[in-house]
Amino acid sequence: MPDTPIITLTTDFGVSSPYVGAMKGAILAINPRATLVDISHTVPAQDVRSGAIVLADITPLFPDETIHVAVIDPGVGTDRAMVYAQLGGQRYVCPDNGLLSRLAIDATPSTLIAITEARWFRQPVSRTFHGRDVMGPVAAHLSLGLDPAELGRPHPSLHQLDWPGAARVADSKGGVRRLEGVIESVDSFGNLITNITRDALADAPSDESVSVTCDGHETHGIFQTYGDQPPLTLIALIGSTDRLELAIVDENAALMLGIAVGTPVVVTW
Amino acid sequence: MPDTPIITLTTDFGVSSPYVGAMKGAILAINPRATLVDISHTVPAQDVRSGAIVLADITPLFPDETIHVAVIDPGVGTDRAMVYAQLGGQRYVCPDNGLLSRLAIDATPSTLIAITEARWFRQPVSRTFHGRDVMGPVAAHLSLGLDPAELGRPHPSLHQLDWPGAARVADSKGGVRRLEGVIESVDSFGNLITNITRDALADAPSDESVSVTCDGHETHGIFQTYGDQPPLTLIALIGSTDRLELAIVDENAALMLGIAVGTPVVVTW
Amino acid sequence: MPDTPIITLTTDFGVSSPYVGAMKGAILAINPRATLVDISHTVPAQDVRSGAIVLADITPLFPDETIHVAVIDPGVGTDRAMVYAQLGGQRYVCPDNGLLSRLAIDATPSTLIAITEARWFRQPVSRTFHGRDVMGPVAAHLSLGLDPAELGRPHPSLHQLDWPGAARVADSKGGVRRLEGVIESVDSFGNLITNITRDALADAPSDESVSVTCDGHETHGIFQTYGDQPPLTLIALIGSTDRLELAIVDENAALMLGIAVGTPVVVTW
Repeated sequence: MPDTPIITLTTDFGVSSPYVGAMKGAILAINPRATLVDISHTVPAQDVRSGAIVLADITPLFPDETIHVAVIDPGVGTDRAMVYAQLGGQRYVCPDNGLLSRLAIDATPSTLIAITEARWFRQPVSRTFHGRDVMGPVAAHLSLGLDPAELGRPHPSLHQLDWPGAARVADSKGGVRRLEGVIESVDSFGNLITNITRDALADAPSDESVSVTCDGHETHGIFQTYGDQPPLTLIALIGSTDRLELAIVDENAALMLGIAVGTPVVVTW
Repeated sequence: MPDTPIITLTTDFGVSSPYVGAMKGAILAINPRATLVDISHTVPAQDVRSGAIVLADITPLFPDETIHVAVIDPGVGTDRAMVYAQLGGQRYVCPDNGLLSRLAIDATPSTLIAITEARWFRQPVSRTFHGRDVMGPVAAHLSLGLDPAELGRPHPSLHQLDWPGAARVADSKGGVRRLEGVIESVDSFGNLITNITRDALADAPSDESVSVTCDGHETHGIFQTYGDQPPLTLIALIGSTDRLELAIVDENAALMLGIAVGTPVVVTW
Repeated sequence: MPDTPIITLTTDFGVSSPYVGAMKGAILAINPRATLVDISHTVPAQDVRSGAIVLADITPLFPDETIHVAVIDPGVGTDRAMVYAQLGGQRYVCPDNGLLSRLAIDATPSTLIAITEARWFRQPVSRTFHGRDVMGPVAAHLSLGLDPAELGRPHPSLHQLDWPGAARVADSKGGVRRLEGVIESVDSFGNLITNITRDALADAPSDESVSVTCDGHETHGIFQTYGDQPPLTLIALIGSTDRLELAIVDENAALMLGIAVGTPVVVTW
């Protein structure tokens, strides 16, 4: 155990929800020395895919052995499993509903346990709030050094969601000159983040001969940062998670263009 | 004193308000080792009843000796008292305006002091921000081991608010077959939480012979969790605070039905 | 170094943004013992002036040696400098874009360094997220005792913004009987906070002979606190940061009156 165990929380409970406070109370009642860190509580309600993207983008930044509790849990109280997983250096406690599926693109859990041992739960266990009664308490016990093997039996495999990459479209000579992707998330600045990675763009030039189109809007070139163009310019750039994004300098592109998650994006050169 | 003193904050200061940062600075200036935990800062502005519900639902989850500071304080700077109260294992610092009245339904304060000793306050004390200048600093000093008796004189009793339970309506044979309650809070998912407790429903069957009506909408049966019915179904269930709630599976019932706090709810069987 | 180093975060990343979680992960990966405190993440997007007001109002409340990281950074990735500054007892890490200019009205930095030494940065450094890759990591290293001189070379001076005070208008006999100011910020309760300080009002009487007008609305007298007048009354008072503010008792003045930052305010007596 690190001597300053860190437990992070990612939920869809909403802005400053008392339910987050409830989870923190349940955790601190077991380990008052745990360091609690909020990753986000504004994952859209019951949107497991959005939660999976947050976990994949953010949790690997934390020190090894950090315990990440994620509660986006539309199936709470049904027979969906709850799992403990070790992925890379990080540790996760969450429902097995796809939340870890994006992290699992690049890694296989070195440990994967179905959480079933009720002695680690807060009693009585409600049917509607397993974040407070099961996952929070389990994370707290883990932060005190509990062996994950005490949580239950090995779980066969993580629930998978489909995470398609951008399609690479070859021209008649077999060269790739076109990528077809999609807006995968929108950040709080309204920047439109695609599933087109820096790697997928390795063959593309970065000058104005590259065209990026989305919902009838077109921009040329791939820039390095927002300040590279004047305010109100639509630009494409590689963002902080190494994916292509569309932004309007000093403005909210999602609102100004009315573009949402799922909109197709095409890069040609 | 616990060696890792915890101070929680519950306010109506709003989302990510700098005023919360101000309270944290004032606390940490006195005890930089205090562990600060946000319970909620989105209690509706000056809504003491909502704050009282949050405190009653959430604070008992924390470890004993936790100090809870609550600042929903429409009377700041007037002659309303500020109090220190010990209720159960928890400790509270707040204005005496009803914020503790819901907790006090089930418990009498073992200690109750009117906070008057200015030597524990940040100076100069503003007339408009006692969270920063009085209640935060007092909590910080308590977290360092200050004897609450040093804060002022015993306070006679807590300000009470009325917390009516559901009315039990007997039929002609004297059996209870009808409960009349009210929507008491709405959570961030739009679930409509009533004042009808699990205990009040002890005599009700859980099958479809139970009817729950609210604002012209009717549902049958009392379910265990949200996933027990298909999406978009209106259901009644016992929620995580042991009270009857109305929910629409995978949707926001408050928005879809236009139902707010105060709306009557009737259960019959 | 204090043995419990505190790092605060002030950004425009938005409510419960995962980007804040990313910064926290990057900091804790370097110093898992740092105490992280959120000041605000709802500074309006790219609004350096609003960020500067928050820093000036809130950060001096923290214990000496606290490290404040502020990321309102429209020029991220361009050639704007990032700086380390010591101002009074507090320490700051931020872009040099005016964020510290309001604090610097009353104090000159005792240390001011341009942050250029890449060995303290997270690698690879993105062009779009220096909060995660530069400023967070630098703050974490400082919290471990890094000498600021290791961050780069002395920086000549802070970027200044204009912070005009209220104009004092003398009458024909040379006495000041009129102050002309402006709404400088709006808090989460909708209170309208001016740039007219308690000091500027030293000569004004506090009785009803003082008139405060803003956007055609007029109120008389300067009160001590919100509860001094009945609900729905427009009042002027000296708020918790020692500046004149306009408020509507128990209501949101900004919404009810449609008044925003920049609106002129005149005090006469």
